[in-house]
Amino acid sequence: MDKLEMRHTLLAAKARKKMSWDDIGKAVGMSPVWVASACYGMNSASKDVAQQICDTLGVESDVAEALVAFPTKAWDEAIPQDPFIYRLYEVVGVYGETLKDVVQEKFGDGIMSAIDFTMEVDKIEDPKGDRVLLTLNGKFLPYKSW
Amino acid sequence: MDKLEMRHTLLAAKARKKMSWDDIGKAVGMSPVWVASACYGMNSASKDVAQQICDTLGVESDVAEALVAFPTKAWDEAIPQDPFIYRLYEVVGVYGETLKDVVQEKFGDGIMSAIDFTMEVDKIEDPKGDRVLLTLNGKFLPYKSW
Amino acid sequence: MDKLEMRHTLLAAKARKKMSWDDIGKAVGMSPVWVASACYGMNSASKDVAQQICDTLGVESDVAEALVAFPTKAWDEAIPQDPFIYRLYEVVGVYGETLKDVVQEKFGDGIMSAIDFTMEVDKIEDPKGDRVLLTLNGKFLPYKSW
Amino acid sequence: MDKLEMRHTLLAAKARKKMSWDDIGKAVGMSPVWVASACYGMNSASKDVAQQICDTLGVESDVAEALVAFPTKAWDEAIPQDPFIYRLYEVVGVYGETLKDVVQEKFGDGIMSAIDFTMEVDKIEDPKGDRVLLTLNGKFLPYKSW
Amino acid sequence: MDKLEMRHTLLAAKARKKMSWDDIGKAVGMSPVWVASACYGMNSASKDVAQQICDTLGVESDVAEALVAFPTKAWDEAIPQDPFIYRLYEVVGVYGETLKDVVQEKFGDGIMSAIDFTMEVDKIEDPKGDRVLLTLNGKFLPYKSW
Amino acid sequence: MDKLEMRHTLLAAKARKKMSWDDIGKAVGMSPVWVASACYGMNSASKDVAQQICDTLGVESDVAEALVAFPTKAWDEAIPQDPFIYRLYEVVGVYGETLKDVVQEKFGDGIMSAIDFTMEVDKIEDPKGDRVLLTLNGKFLPYKSW
Amino acid sequence: MDKLEMRHTLLAAKARKKMSWDDIGKAVGMSPVWVASACYGMNSASKDVAQQICDTLGVESDVAEALVAFPTKAWDEAIPQDPFIYRLYEVVGVYGETLKDVVQEKFGDGIMSAIDFTMEVDKIEDPKGDRVLLTLNGKFLPYKSW
Amino acid sequence: MDKLEMRHTLLAAKARKKMSWDDIGKAVGMSPVWVASACYGMNSASKDVAQQICDTLGVESDVAEALVAFPTKAWDEAIPQDPFIYRLYEVVGVYGETLKDVVQEKFGDGIMSAIDFTMEVDKIEDPKGDRVLLTLNGKFLPYKSW
Amino acid sequence: MDKLEMRHTLLAAKARKKMSWDDIGKAVGMSPVWVASACYGMNSASKDVAQQICDTLGVESDVAEALVAFPTKAWDEAIPQDPFIYRLYEVVGVYGETLKDVVQEKFGDGIMSAIDFTMEVDKIEDPKGDRVLLTLNGKFLPYKSW
Amino acid sequence: MDKLEMRHTLLAAKARKKMSWDDIGKAVGMSPVWVASACYGMNSASKDVAQQICDTLGVESDVAEALVAFPTKAWDEAIPQDPFIYRLYEVVGVYGETLKDVVQEKFGDGIMSAIDFTMEVDKIEDPKGDRVLLTLNGKFLPYKSW
Repeated sequence: MDKLEMRHTLLAAKARKKMSWDDIGKAVGMSPVWVASACYGMNSASKDVAQQICDTLGVESDVAEALVAFPTKAWDEAIPQDPFIYRLYEVVGVYGETLKDVVQEKFGDGIMSAIDFTMEVDKIEDPKGDRVLLTLNGKFLPYKSW
Repeated sequence: MDKLEMRHTLLAAKARKKMSWDDIGKAVGMSPVWVASACYGMNSASKDVAQQICDTLGVESDVAEALVAFPTKAWDEAIPQDPFIYRLYEVVGVYGETLKDVVQEKFGDGIMSAIDFTMEVDKIEDPKGDRVLLTLNGKFLPYKSW
Repeated sequence: MDKLEMRHTLLAAKARKKMSWDDIGKAVGMSPVWVASACYGMNSASKDVAQQICDTLGVESDVAEALVAFPTKAWDEAIPQDPFIYRLYEVVGVYGETLKDVVQEKFGDGIMSAIDFTMEVDKIEDPKGDRVLLTLNGKFLPYKSW
Repeated sequence: MDKLEMRHTLLAAKARKKMSWDDIGKAVGMSPVWVASACYGMNSASKDVAQQICDTLGVESDVAEALVAFPTKAWDEAIPQDPFIYRLYEVVGVYGETLKDVVQEKFGDGIMSAIDFTMEVDKIEDPKGDRVLLTLNGKFLPYKSW
Repeated sequence: MDKLEMRHTLLAAKARKKMSWDDIGKAVGMSPVWVASACYGMNSASKDVAQQICDTLGVESDVAEALVAFPTKAWDEAIPQDPFIYRLYEVVGVYGETLKDVVQEKFGDGIMSAIDFTMEVDKIEDPKGDRVLLTLNGKFLPYKSW
Repeated sequence: MDKLEMRHTLLAAKARKKMSWDDIGKAVGMSPVWVASACYGMNSASKDVAQQICDTLGVESDVAEALVAFPTKAWDEAIPQDPFIYRLYEVVGVYGETLKDVVQEKFGDGIMSAIDFTMEVDKIEDPKGDRVLLTLNGKFLPYKSW
Repeated sequence: MDKLEMRHTLLAAKARKKMSWDDIGKAVGMSPVWVASACYGMNSASKDVAQQICDTLGVESDVAEALVAFPTKAWDEAIPQDPFIYRLYEVVGVYGETLKDVVQEKFGDGIMSAIDFTMEVDKIEDPKGDRVLLTLNGKFLPYKSW
Repeated sequence: MDKLEMRHTLLAAKARKKMSWDDIGKAVGMSPVWVASACYGMNSASKDVAQQICDTLGVESDVAEALVAFPTKAWDEAIPQDPFIYRLYEVVGVYGETLKDVVQEKFGDGIMSAIDFTMEVDKIEDPKGDRVLLTLNGKFLPYKSW
Repeated sequence: MDKLEMRHTLLAAKARKKMSWDDIGKAVGMSPVWVASACYGMNSASKDVAQQICDTLGVESDVAEALVAFPTKAWDEAIPQDPFIYRLYEVVGVYGETLKDVVQEKFGDGIMSAIDFTMEVDKIEDPKGDRVLLTLNGKFLPYKSW
Repeated sequence: MDKLEMRHTLLAAKARKKMSWDDIGKAVGMSPVWVASACYGMNSASKDVAQQICDTLGVESDVAEALVAFPTKAWDEAIPQDPFIYRLYEVVGVYGETLKDVVQEKFGDGIMSAIDFTMEVDKIEDPKGDRVLLTLNGKFLPYKSW
């Protein structure tokens, strides 16, 4: 079973079970964003967690094998088109240089890792319109001289 | 004075004054990320704030006019190359679809605004290597039916 | 049923019923442009409206589920080729900068939302050749400072 | 004087005179969007109107010659980056196919001209947030068979 | 039946009938270039003409419906590769600016329509090598001021 | 003197002399389209014709040398943006495949040369709107087998 | 049978017969490069030669029809990736301008035809490593003035 | 002196001396194509040859230093536009796959080097039109297994 | 059997046999990186080695034929997206110019061959985090003058 | 002084001093590849090392400031053109997927860091042609689950 078939199976099971990513995250003891990314095929799970996801969603254990496999990460569009994802791309374009300067001033020359990295989504209720809170947390990696 | 000349003037003054973005942010009562983005030419400032930035950095008030002007936001590379900025682009590519699903499950069909939007940078000290915390906060905008 | 299959089903039913978008719009109490966009898979409908569209066109209610699903919006060509759509792209290219200046002069620094947004099509009869009237109506979103 | 120098001269004079596009449009008897597009170098003016624009803004009459010259229309980015202009591009992407169907159903096989074309901007005040109203008006051109 | 299937059906029937585009054009009273473009799926035919094409080529009348449908015009390659088509693209690149100047000098600021447009192909016999004569005939559309 | 400086010199002289391309073509005994293309730097002239162009426009003979030089032909945009030139590009996209079939049916497998090639522009007066007539005339080159 | 199926059939037959392109070229009295290009679908063969190729390789005569059909020439990658083909692309990039100057100095302003064109491959044995000899032979086409 | 200034100096001197690439090649004992490529900045010369080129063309010896420098080879357009160079690109596109098969059948799996490589241009006089003969000669490099 | 089917067969067999690339490399007496590249379809194997790979993995000998076939090397993305491969691309971008200078200073004007080339992967254990050691070994090829 | 001016100053001083990267590396106690990358503007140096580089090359200490500044890393061409750098790009394309599999089999799911990373160049003398040895050494970063 490849990652694409795995993803279809898991999303269909999730719809059938009427579970949210929060529900699944709680059931398997991981963050909902990470669980979703693994089910979308963008991260690999440990054997235990993969099995727990399959048990939670009631799918066969060959899906677990696909969850454990190391993914090849790719996306369709160099410049995303869906408005939700484009807005994130726009933030990187508009604020990328600013963030580089603010972070490197605080930490020195280096980058925020996208590998040793976690991310959370929260909802802030607000009478003028609810707000989305995205929290990105990555290890700072200083450039090495040699 | 256009935004490019304004930016060179402000960054040179900042280096001369040996002030950080945090320092300037505190001096003018705004977030350091927003102040940096305005000085980089990616946001416009109100007259008052523009004047305060100029006073803080000791530059002529024609710079304030340039800070007030409405910017045309643009970036050089559809796919960024600097490793710091690329890692953010990679996060959008790898997690974009995941985030869309997690957020829309919580909020309904819509997007996180990149206009009614704020962003913060924090440093988390950690013996295994300090971590960068980026917080994005955008108003949720539901798609309108008509 | 995915959005593509839904679209084929709905367009075939519409042809069979010989109904126009205006007819369907009236039948379900929504604008014809919005109804068309939902049937093309570019907007999601509420449960009620989805069911009404299905009833109007005489299709099974699994199509309604597909109409309710949140779409991933995408288009094939960064630069459109069909002459009808290209002319709209050309208008954005030729008049984009002009519109930005005229609107921001009237409203301040910000954008016209493409999310809190509606659009209408009208026909103006004219002996020298009928004219198409497109009306775009979007909420103005001012940039936030923080 | 080429269109670029003309544009800088006219925008500087407009800022000096503190006139809006509405003011200039009224002074010369043309629509503010068209006047702005001509001053940005995207349309040519008749001799009379060009002279009136120059008189209104108090600039030398060599600018009028540049206003009369036939422009080569071009834009920098196949996919626009400034959020204001990108939203318009997104509207073309998301609704292009829908509009083609709705318009051609009403008018037959053909296009809306971007040449025999006018455009207006209006402000709709709204307590929940003002709205931008863009009106595009183009002659319908049926495809010719031969 | 979509335009692609229609095209395969018509080209196969044309090969079976051993008719040239000239033959079909004469049989249905239209220009061979236009007939070919309609059979390739790049133009829509009136009901009468569509039926005549089907009768001439001996194909079922569901093909006529596909001929009547309004096409979405598209081509595979932004820069064509086949040497025949590339040479036409090269002509546009090499002579585009020249043609714009020569035509606009004669007609004023405007364009040659590609919609209210016809095209013919002729063969000029020549002992030094026959020559292809392409004649493009498009309505001149002046830019509108408003 | 390079082709760009030559072009500026010749276009300025042409404006000063208030001559059309037709006038210059007649004066030097060549077609106006070819003369324009040579002055734009897209074709080389023989010594005699180059000198005649310079005499007609009253420019120094170092311009003649630049007219004689063999050009490197290039254009700025793979997909043209100016509406006049784009319409020609669109014609190639929409009708390219059709033309290939119609021409090759008449002539065999081969191409229309863009090198052994001429082009004319005519104006057809028409009460419903004047029409542009472009005539392309290229030698047919059959593919060689070996 | 289209060119792709033809190609698969011919390459499979060639492998079965264990014949080289040289063998087939000799058998049908044509150059091995041309024969290969026709079998790859990049050139059309005369009826006689097509039949001889089919006889030589022992395939059905419907393949001959496909060999006779006029191809649409296309290649997958604007910049080739296979190292063999990339090296040829690199030669065009590195030496293109040089070759243009050397050839036009010898022949006048014009091009080497890629249509009235032949090409041969030879092997030069060399103790330091055998060498590939590619010979390109194209008619010189002078630019026409008119 | 960089390669660009070197090139302008050498081409101007060549024009002044009215020497052809053949003349210079003979004078310095190298092939005219190689000499031209070195003067265009696409190859480096040994000190001796560089000095001979400078002596032959009567330029200062700082040009010789620039001729000796190792070039960074680059070209402006991924897909060339000048018709002379485009035809070579087209040959690579149309015949690339064919040549790979013909050469690898003769030599085994590997490539023709573009580094250990030479190239010649010859003129073949022909009453039906002179022909250009390009000869490419590159070392065959077999892929290594390890 | 084409390279793609071969690859699926070999990777499935490898998973079934629970062998690492090191294991297979040792079994057939070749480097694990080369063996993997051949199984991925990016290199051709000799008949003997191909047979040994098939014996080691217990697959039919028609796979061996596919291993012997000369590959057409290609990759999907001009700019790779998977973070593992992107980091290598980034290294080429960041250090390419530096490496060219350092290597050419040591060896003269020329390149490191990617054909007469080998590559190894080693693991360096390190308490602060293990390190990957990639060793690239390519023949230096000096540019030829002629 | 920006990185570009710094680079010109340092490379000119290096040429004047006739020092190799090895010489400078030894003088300042760093690897020659890293020193070259810092002088090319692709890495930042500590204050001490920057001063040592300036002393070694005999340049003013304002160059040292530029060496200390944090660079924005960028390269001109998404697909490099210079043959030296292209060969490295080709290696990433041909072997990228292979390397990912071989490394991840040894280390688990993760990447080789391009930040915590060093690189060396060595020359291996060989009678059949000297060889270039590139050694890349990067920390393995496992993907984090959360």
